[in-house]
Amino acid sequence: MPKGDASQGEIKTPSCRFCHGSNGIAPRPDYPNLKGQQAEYLYNSMQAYLDGSRTGTMSAMMKAQLKNLSEQDIADIAEYYAQMK
Amino acid sequence: MPKGDASQGEIKTPSCRFCHGSNGIAPRPDYPNLKGQQAEYLYNSMQAYLDGSRTGTMSAMMKAQLKNLSEQDIADIAEYYAQMK
Repeated sequence: MPKGDASQGEIKTPSCRFCHGSNGIAPRPDYPNLKGQQAEYLYNSMQAYLDGSRTGTMSAMMKAQLKNLSEQDIADIAEYYAQMK
Repeated sequence: MPKGDASQGEIKTPSCRFCHGSNGIAPRPDYPNLKGQQAEYLYNSMQAYLDGSRTGTMSAMMKAQLKNLSEQDIADIAEYYAQMK
């Protein structure tokens, strides 16, 4: 996992906010809160959507959201949410 | 998803605590915090380990932890963590 930059992550999260909330608290009980979540877990989860090890509900949508992001982008986003208070 | 009972969930979480913390904050950055997470998301995630739609890192371990739990048990555990402050 590359070292994430939270300030860069913030710039890269507009599409995340629709479902995970602008404050990292999801507006629906079937979407996860991301605020304060562990960075490496978030990074691994996003990679799992991309590499096909997470399938089922939401996975096609998540893969579509993530497919144009680099590993650095994903690390930045993970760090942004991990640092959110 | 059955309606969860947080007080029942608390009784059913001893094995969860080793990795997710007794306060729902994971001691390692590759394990997710569960404190205050959305109940339905937690329920769906546990079911995804059981039904094989989550594979990859940790999935075999998670499936082993969950395989003897009923849908009600899983709903109770999800509600317990969702209500944790």
